[in-house]
Amino acid sequence: MEARTLRLSFLLVTALLLLLFTRSWIHLPYNTPSENRFQSNIPNIKNPPKGPKPNSIDDHNARTPLHPLDPLTVQEINRARSILYSYPPFSSSPPNSFTIHSLVLQEPHKQLVLKWKTGDPLFPRRASLIAILNRQSHIMTLDLGSESVIRHEISSSSGFPTMTNEEMNYVTSVPLTDPKFNRTVRSRGVDLTDLACLPISGGWFGVKEEENTRRLIRVQCYSLQGTSNFYMRPIEGLTVTVDLDTKQVVEVSDRGRGIPIPAAANTEYVYNQNTHMTKSSNSPRINPISIEQVKGPSFEIENGHMVKWANWEFHLKADPRAGVIISRAMARDFAGSVAMRSVLYKGMTSELFVPYMDPTEAWYFKTYMDAGEYGFGLQAMPLEPLNDCPRNARFVDGVFAAADGKPYVRENMICVFESYGGEIGWRHSESPITGMGIREVRPKVTLVVRMAASVANYDYIVDWEFQMDGIIRVKVGLSGILMVKGTPYDHMNKVPEQEELYGTLLSENVIGVIHDHFVTFYLDMDIDGLDNSFVKVNLERQQNSGSETPRRSYLKANRRIAKTEKEAQIQFKLYEPAEYHVVNPSKLTRVGNPVGYKVVPRATAASLLDHDDPPQRRGAFTNNQIYVTPYNESEQWAGGLFVYQSHGEDTLAVWSERDRDIENKDIVLWYTLGFHHVPCQEDFPIMPVVSSSFDLKPVNFFERNPILSVPPNFEKDLPVCKADASA
Amino acid sequence: MEARTLRLSFLLVTALLLLLFTRSWIHLPYNTPSENRFQSNIPNIKNPPKGPKPNSIDDHNARTPLHPLDPLTVQEINRARSILYSYPPFSSSPPNSFTIHSLVLQEPHKQLVLKWKTGDPLFPRRASLIAILNRQSHIMTLDLGSESVIRHEISSSSGFPTMTNEEMNYVTSVPLTDPKFNRTVRSRGVDLTDLACLPISGGWFGVKEEENTRRLIRVQCYSLQGTSNFYMRPIEGLTVTVDLDTKQVVEVSDRGRGIPIPAAANTEYVYNQNTHMTKSSNSPRINPISIEQVKGPSFEIENGHMVKWANWEFHLKADPRAGVIISRAMARDFAGSVAMRSVLYKGMTSELFVPYMDPTEAWYFKTYMDAGEYGFGLQAMPLEPLNDCPRNARFVDGVFAAADGKPYVRENMICVFESYGGEIGWRHSESPITGMGIREVRPKVTLVVRMAASVANYDYIVDWEFQMDGIIRVKVGLSGILMVKGTPYDHMNKVPEQEELYGTLLSENVIGVIHDHFVTFYLDMDIDGLDNSFVKVNLERQQNSGSETPRRSYLKANRRIAKTEKEAQIQFKLYEPAEYHVVNPSKLTRVGNPVGYKVVPRATAASLLDHDDPPQRRGAFTNNQIYVTPYNESEQWAGGLFVYQSHGEDTLAVWSERDRDIENKDIVLWYTLGFHHVPCQEDFPIMPVVSSSFDLKPVNFFERNPILSVPPNFEKDLPVCKADASA
Repeated sequence: MEARTLRLSFLLVTALLLLLFTRSWIHLPYNTPSENRFQSNIPNIKNPPKGPKPNSIDDHNARTPLHPLDPLTVQEINRARSILYSYPPFSSSPPNSFTIHSLVLQEPHKQLVLKWKTGDPLFPRRASLIAILNRQSHIMTLDLGSESVIRHEISSSSGFPTMTNEEMNYVTSVPLTDPKFNRTVRSRGVDLTDLACLPISGGWFGVKEEENTRRLIRVQCYSLQGTSNFYMRPIEGLTVTVDLDTKQVVEVSDRGRGIPIPAAANTEYVYNQNTHMTKSSNSPRINPISIEQVKGPSFEIENGHMVKWANWEFHLKADPRAGVIISRAMARDFAGSVAMRSVLYKGMTSELFVPYMDPTEAWYFKTYMDAGEYGFGLQAMPLEPLNDCPRNARFVDGVFAAADGKPYVRENMICVFESYGGEIGWRHSESPITGMGIREVRPKVTLVVRMAASVANYDYIVDWEFQMDGIIRVKVGLSGILMVKGTPYDHMNKVPEQEELYGTLLSENVIGVIHDHFVTFYLDMDIDGLDNSFVKVNLERQQNSGSETPRRSYLKANRRIAKTEKEAQIQFKLYEPAEYHVVNPSKLTRVGNPVGYKVVPRATAASLLDHDDPPQRRGAFTNNQIYVTPYNESEQWAGGLFVYQSHGEDTLAVWSERDRDIENKDIVLWYTLGFHHVPCQEDFPIMPVVSSSFDLKPVNFFERNPILSVPPNFEKDLPVCKADASA
Repeated sequence: MEARTLRLSFLLVTALLLLLFTRSWIHLPYNTPSENRFQSNIPNIKNPPKGPKPNSIDDHNARTPLHPLDPLTVQEINRARSILYSYPPFSSSPPNSFTIHSLVLQEPHKQLVLKWKTGDPLFPRRASLIAILNRQSHIMTLDLGSESVIRHEISSSSGFPTMTNEEMNYVTSVPLTDPKFNRTVRSRGVDLTDLACLPISGGWFGVKEEENTRRLIRVQCYSLQGTSNFYMRPIEGLTVTVDLDTKQVVEVSDRGRGIPIPAAANTEYVYNQNTHMTKSSNSPRINPISIEQVKGPSFEIENGHMVKWANWEFHLKADPRAGVIISRAMARDFAGSVAMRSVLYKGMTSELFVPYMDPTEAWYFKTYMDAGEYGFGLQAMPLEPLNDCPRNARFVDGVFAAADGKPYVRENMICVFESYGGEIGWRHSESPITGMGIREVRPKVTLVVRMAASVANYDYIVDWEFQMDGIIRVKVGLSGILMVKGTPYDHMNKVPEQEELYGTLLSENVIGVIHDHFVTFYLDMDIDGLDNSFVKVNLERQQNSGSETPRRSYLKANRRIAKTEKEAQIQFKLYEPAEYHVVNPSKLTRVGNPVGYKVVPRATAASLLDHDDPPQRRGAFTNNQIYVTPYNESEQWAGGLFVYQSHGEDTLAVWSERDRDIENKDIVLWYTLGFHHVPCQEDFPIMPVVSSSFDLKPVNFFERNPILSVPPNFEKDLPVCKADASA
């Protein structure tokens, strides 16, 4: 066939594939609802979640903001869009010559928000907008009331804004426009109609000039033949570099000739597709189990965003980059004896860093920064009722702007639910030693705010869990599908002694490549007010030099206030244990301890990469497990504002080296939760959840145990349940 | 009054106090059920837990053992007792001249148990018995079938057996026989009728010869006036040393003159006693919440001890020293495609070490070893239905021997329940990037085996949690009441600069003393068979020296088999990360990985005490976080068989220095879970639960994800619930 006809045919096929593979959750004007052979059976889609919530963009249309921190509404996004379209140079540029990469509320100054009370008028509503026009990144602030642009600059920093879903989706089909690519695919034994491709950020290595000037993306492809789980069927070693702005293929590289595509067998995970997964006679009988609240949940979500539960209240919203943002979190003891007190002004996922440990050609650049590159919230898909969240959950939508600025609703992006799994709040029995007849036990009920970001293959479940004892537990669960590498080997005994696999052989011809995950959280703690200090409480061995007793050693808690940022760059050492407190030095308890909260680490991991390795420079915010910085509105994104292909000159690590004062000031704590992941066969073809967490825990914040007055469970309060008659 | 009359009066008062303060849970022949003003309202005692279980000693009377590992039954304990009473020298000694400190099943040899199948006859039933007669510790093995003693030796090791509840209870009133003590108490402003005393193990410091030859205990006392929470009202500095065998006062020491007794105000925690805790108008409304299983739980407990649930089975029993023992834990994938496979032959709490960090006279010796000194199981009180364990729990009793050898039942000592708190088992959504319509989520349901040991003031909640993905999660929760120190200070501004408090001022005149908790677990892993190896998988940075790609560094997993014990003495270092695998080198997966399980640490702590400090020598099993030893029937108790006043010459650390071979052998893994506890006001007057855990997690044990075929929750399976009409 003639080359041009061939190209046209391929474009037609591409367009058809686009139609085939998109669904209409995201209400994009150019997506049409469609059937495709991989559409999963979502059994509960007929039973929408209960509780008052708008179900479509029509309900969101009417919403107006009611709290200064409320995210932009549908109306406001539309207004921002028309402001932009009327503003030079956008007003004179063709509509599809520029893309909007971020359009969110510009939060009012903290001092204003702290003074605001329900019933007060809102502050002027402002939008932060980032757009790319003619390869330039425009950073703008729009005043929605006066419909004007009040700030406009063109970025001069390295790096580019977050990608849009639209361009990510589009580039996955661009390789098909390249005949060399198509030939290669076919030569590897894959039909073009079975192709599924992923947009893979390439990081920045400073080797070629084009890394600085062009927005590039790597595209790697998989075979969809025989399974939904194309991730397990990589066309190994075939990498296409595409220019995100011109949408042109820049380079096609094939380092995988001779490496077979792993088989489709045993990779399926979709429920109805997988005959293996239907009840076999050997599967154990698991009786239904659910959390029941016959009087309904105990929490309220006022005005769509203010959550009130037990002794907590906080503002909750979705964000395209951070996922979930918790603001104005305040607490008091359960007896309700005092007014609500400030704990956390703003908490959110600030950045991720996910380096893969394979330095070869098709893998070395896989060093994802999922928030700044992909948008952690943009990748958060609707949660599945009854499975992602239990029956008693309520759902909150995200409202985002598409690449053309039009608003859309991400339904059920967040769920909120009370959790009770049988945990104990506090207890004490008198033992046989004293023989006293005392047995006091109180249950633990918590409130979970959950989101799940599906960044291509990986699923990140992020929980903000509030406990009545004042603890905020931040938890990250990893699930989804590994990024795997094709290999000629089908058994370990065929791998030569000296050959590095860079991971584990999971199945025939499939290697799970070793990688790390780091999730960095921004935690603007405001303990009972703005001015706090960061105190390291080091537990240090003392020798008992006195001869009074034969005890030789004991531990002493030595408190040291961090005066400047460098004193708050923390690496954990098991044999140099410490507590990490954020205190209000001006507020003491009745007996004179400063009120505070402490960060309690759990399982975590540290990055071991070379500090000069470009990915580690870009991810330098993982050099330490904790940082503390003075509050600064422009310092929210640990990898910098523009992370995509950034050089790492504007990260949290760089700011922290300025060694600014942090004593008795408004400070921000940064905590990085890390995971080392050496894959194993149990992760194939989809991973059971692995999770870790850290706590923000009151330390002398309360005068005494805040849950002393929580009542126990009584039989009379429990429901009477029977099986559903319709079952 | 004449001295003798005074003494008699005090003895009478003591006896009356004993009667007043004991309850009849433990069915001791000399305890009578009684009212006392501290008897708590246990609302659910009228509604005994559901499910088939014997409720009293009468039901246990009929039980016979049905599994080789089943604990001694009531009949067997009686038989052992009569064997002992017929055996010299016990047969010729007055009945109350000797005490039985341990009477448990002597488990048949492992090789025999592994061959045994249901329906086979049991092996000859043997009992291990430890008794003290005339200050000598007798170690005996009894054959119950032939009613004979087949082993009898007198211990020559340092240290003494676990205390009995009876002697612990008794010694708390011995100080009252000492006039000097009584005078001191009264001079401190406390009525003798308000006295509550605790038996505090004194450790061993090797200073006085009597530490080696006499069984000594320290007794310290508190005021019960005005509160159930006497722990918060110490008579600071007053320590009585008592001889456990003669029951005589050895020494009275008062270092606390001038230190006030802290007030009773705000210390109450018993529900009905505390008017503060009844619903105040400010307390938040928390709607009832429960776990419901309208078709009942999914697990069976066969023959009283074999638990079968989902893809797990294991033998479960109570033990007076270890608390809960899990044996013969076997698993398979959820699809049930293969037979059950061995994971853990035996898992239990082996020892605890709880050193307080105050070297002064009345505190330096507080270095508890709760399993070997007090009996972790002996101190486990009945669990409270609906609060310790949710509604769908079933309960298992412990059957123990009293100091005179008579059997008694510790009801509801263990509970077993399925837990669902809204967690996710695995999930994957296709993101907007690919636009595919896939959303697959599976819930996570686990099985929890729970016990709570109340060792005087502290409550330890130990959970063995089984997950369908093959994980065994071992969790320790700390709650209960702090051990506090009286102080003259009522505000931090009154404490001189240089003075060490050794802890935190929690309330007026109350210091919470800093302390550590270490809980060491014995884990006889048998991965698919006896012969296993311990493999350290170190993640080490590699430089990418090749010039092919600009990536400078990456992590490589380097596997090293530990050949001898010293290579398996592990201290965790965040910047030297590793995985710790127990593998079966003879069993490979389909693609050639050795099957195994790994230990996954979470938050933990290391002991920093001087290795030559006598408490640390006795607790030397905490020198490392992990040890691995070759299987040895006599090596089960990490602190040695006789821990009370031991010198530390027979601990896990000592055995490990023998550097025995551990490659491709039957090996045992030891894991120590640690906590540093710097008290805070939230711990006053009773602590919210603090917990940590570690996982035993399959690593290439399964060919693929073992929970791939777990079905999702469906609406039709969920119950219809309404409020209890009687409420």
